[in-house]
Amino acid sequence: MKKGRLEAFSDGVIAIIITIMVLELKVPHSAELHALLPMLPTLFCYVLSFIYVGIYWNNHHHMIYMVDKIDGKVLWANLNLLFWLSLVPFVTAWTGENHFAQWPVIFYGGVLATTGASYNLLARLLIKRSGKNSMLAQAVGRDWKSIASVLIYITGIAAAFYNPLISMGLYIIVAMIWFIPDTRIERKILGKQSC
Amino acid sequence: MKKGRLEAFSDGVIAIIITIMVLELKVPHSAELHALLPMLPTLFCYVLSFIYVGIYWNNHHHMIYMVDKIDGKVLWANLNLLFWLSLVPFVTAWTGENHFAQWPVIFYGGVLATTGASYNLLARLLIKRSGKNSMLAQAVGRDWKSIASVLIYITGIAAAFYNPLISMGLYIIVAMIWFIPDTRIERKILGKQSC
Amino acid sequence: MKKGRLEAFSDGVIAIIITIMVLELKVPHSAELHALLPMLPTLFCYVLSFIYVGIYWNNHHHMIYMVDKIDGKVLWANLNLLFWLSLVPFVTAWTGENHFAQWPVIFYGGVLATTGASYNLLARLLIKRSGKNSMLAQAVGRDWKSIASVLIYITGIAAAFYNPLISMGLYIIVAMIWFIPDTRIERKILGKQSC
Amino acid sequence: MKKGRLEAFSDGVIAIIITIMVLELKVPHSAELHALLPMLPTLFCYVLSFIYVGIYWNNHHHMIYMVDKIDGKVLWANLNLLFWLSLVPFVTAWTGENHFAQWPVIFYGGVLATTGASYNLLARLLIKRSGKNSMLAQAVGRDWKSIASVLIYITGIAAAFYNPLISMGLYIIVAMIWFIPDTRIERKILGKQSC
Repeated sequence: MKKGRLEAFSDGVIAIIITIMVLELKVPHSAELHALLPMLPTLFCYVLSFIYVGIYWNNHHHMIYMVDKIDGKVLWANLNLLFWLSLVPFVTAWTGENHFAQWPVIFYGGVLATTGASYNLLARLLIKRSGKNSMLAQAVGRDWKSIASVLIYITGIAAAFYNPLISMGLYIIVAMIWFIPDTRIERKILGKQSC
Repeated sequence: MKKGRLEAFSDGVIAIIITIMVLELKVPHSAELHALLPMLPTLFCYVLSFIYVGIYWNNHHHMIYMVDKIDGKVLWANLNLLFWLSLVPFVTAWTGENHFAQWPVIFYGGVLATTGASYNLLARLLIKRSGKNSMLAQAVGRDWKSIASVLIYITGIAAAFYNPLISMGLYIIVAMIWFIPDTRIERKILGKQSC
Repeated sequence: MKKGRLEAFSDGVIAIIITIMVLELKVPHSAELHALLPMLPTLFCYVLSFIYVGIYWNNHHHMIYMVDKIDGKVLWANLNLLFWLSLVPFVTAWTGENHFAQWPVIFYGGVLATTGASYNLLARLLIKRSGKNSMLAQAVGRDWKSIASVLIYITGIAAAFYNPLISMGLYIIVAMIWFIPDTRIERKILGKQSC
Repeated sequence: MKKGRLEAFSDGVIAIIITIMVLELKVPHSAELHALLPMLPTLFCYVLSFIYVGIYWNNHHHMIYMVDKIDGKVLWANLNLLFWLSLVPFVTAWTGENHFAQWPVIFYGGVLATTGASYNLLARLLIKRSGKNSMLAQAVGRDWKSIASVLIYITGIAAAFYNPLISMGLYIIVAMIWFIPDTRIERKILGKQSC
């Protein structure tokens, strides 16, 4: 099965998620500057989620690029990832509108963690299809980032019972870990192109 | 006529339907855990519809992949399918917000059944274009799944007059029938690729 | 300039317009059957507009398919068409929610007519680029459909001052004129493919 | 890394931004003609923003077309541009609904200016990747348009403290500067195609 439509569909869904999220910022009725003040936590959450979804799109882009074969299971693992990604705007808005209250922050972390797990599931499936010596398997490697992310997410969710702002700080750290491009994958892709 | 834009347009519409559906989950005003409780039926309906739309996308993907020629009639049969699919979010929300009340459940089943019939119409048209000996005709075969689905939908709609929860259970069974990938089509596609 | 991104962008915009329109059907709060009754005019308008937007997508598909070269002017003529198309959901909702009142029906016709004119402008520009002997110029020919549409739209807008239901009937007639596929274009395309 | 998915994703996001913006025009409850009157400032802002987003899509289209190589930094510079573009509907609605009040107009200009700066950042990055003698570097040239735009934006934002309508006039002038297609780039592209 060709991967073109999987890419096109995923691009479509992720483009809608990332765009609608920002478009959902409610326009204040007042034209005064201070009318924007109560929106700042919401705006902050949107920026963080925008970066998260952007990271997933970038990595999805890289990962599918390295794959040749997809099948029915991959389509469903991909839809599973898209489902959890599509819950990100919900928890983003809930967290932002309640100014980082405990339960919204816990669910924000929960959805981020489950999205990460779904991404990993997709990656495992693709590596299994491609073989252990494939470029993808080598590029992903031991994947310390995923393990670190899971640990930070769990810490973050637990910390919300003490102080949800610590959780938000930990979620930012996970974003930073992934924001810095995975130079190994990029080098692998450059290598593939030069062949 | 090339099928590229038909695929792109369908991907776009289905991506919007599947994503918007989940994005429409209304963010509760309260930050308490119990604020999520009344959302559970709605969330359940969204997950079921997400799987349904996902199934249609997967099967559409497979079916168009096997086709070489499309024409004006196919474009309209495809738009007809997309129209009925686009009503899925409406009946999903109506059913979820009314906690599986009788009429919403009946219309949910009706839209699912009509969407199924529209998919079949498109499949018949494509098989007619491709010829009886085409890969698509062989792959779809006697199509017991479609016949079973129609029967279950009718039973489900009738059951709603007695107990709508039975209907919901039957709709889940249809989803399960289709969720399990049609290995015959996949084998056919693999066969085509190896040629 | 290649036409691939023009097609992709137009597909995206038209997919959003056609899908969002149906998604905007407001879910009634009541779970009773009669709660759907006041929605019937709105649903009718949505179906008509869905067919209109579907016709534009189909014809756009055909037209761009026959074209080899595009330039900056074509991009803007295309954006102009997309702008007017994007106003269709607005007049559709206004007309449906006010049960075919006079002014909404007039604006509905006005937007449909301007969209038609924008489509013609794009077609003229593409023919000018392709040359009078091009396949597109021959396929579009004398274009009696466009002329008839303009006349019917003007009659429809005028009729709204007497009885808006006559206008709606005339808009349906225009849709029917275009719904029947333009066999000449299709034959031309088949001819091109067999070459 | 291939640029196909960057184009598809950007097209998707820009298509959503440009379409949703117009779709957000609130349908008036009254069916009278005068019900449209208070919408005129909003409609005007939407048209202006539609043209702005259209200009960005056109230029993005041209620019990416001339580029062969993209990498992780380009993906993020592109996401940054898309983020600022996605704020355009927010400031558009805020400005329109408050009939060109001071602070909305200032933020409108601010978002337009930042979007312009983000576009420039992306262009610089792409030129750096392509080399100073690349077609893109030559086509963009000394880029007087960007410099002029920045100066006009700053003047416009400052003018809002005196009279916001002057600011709106200046934003229209920037749109006009860019609306007129950059014939040099188009000539370069034609040159590339003829080679």
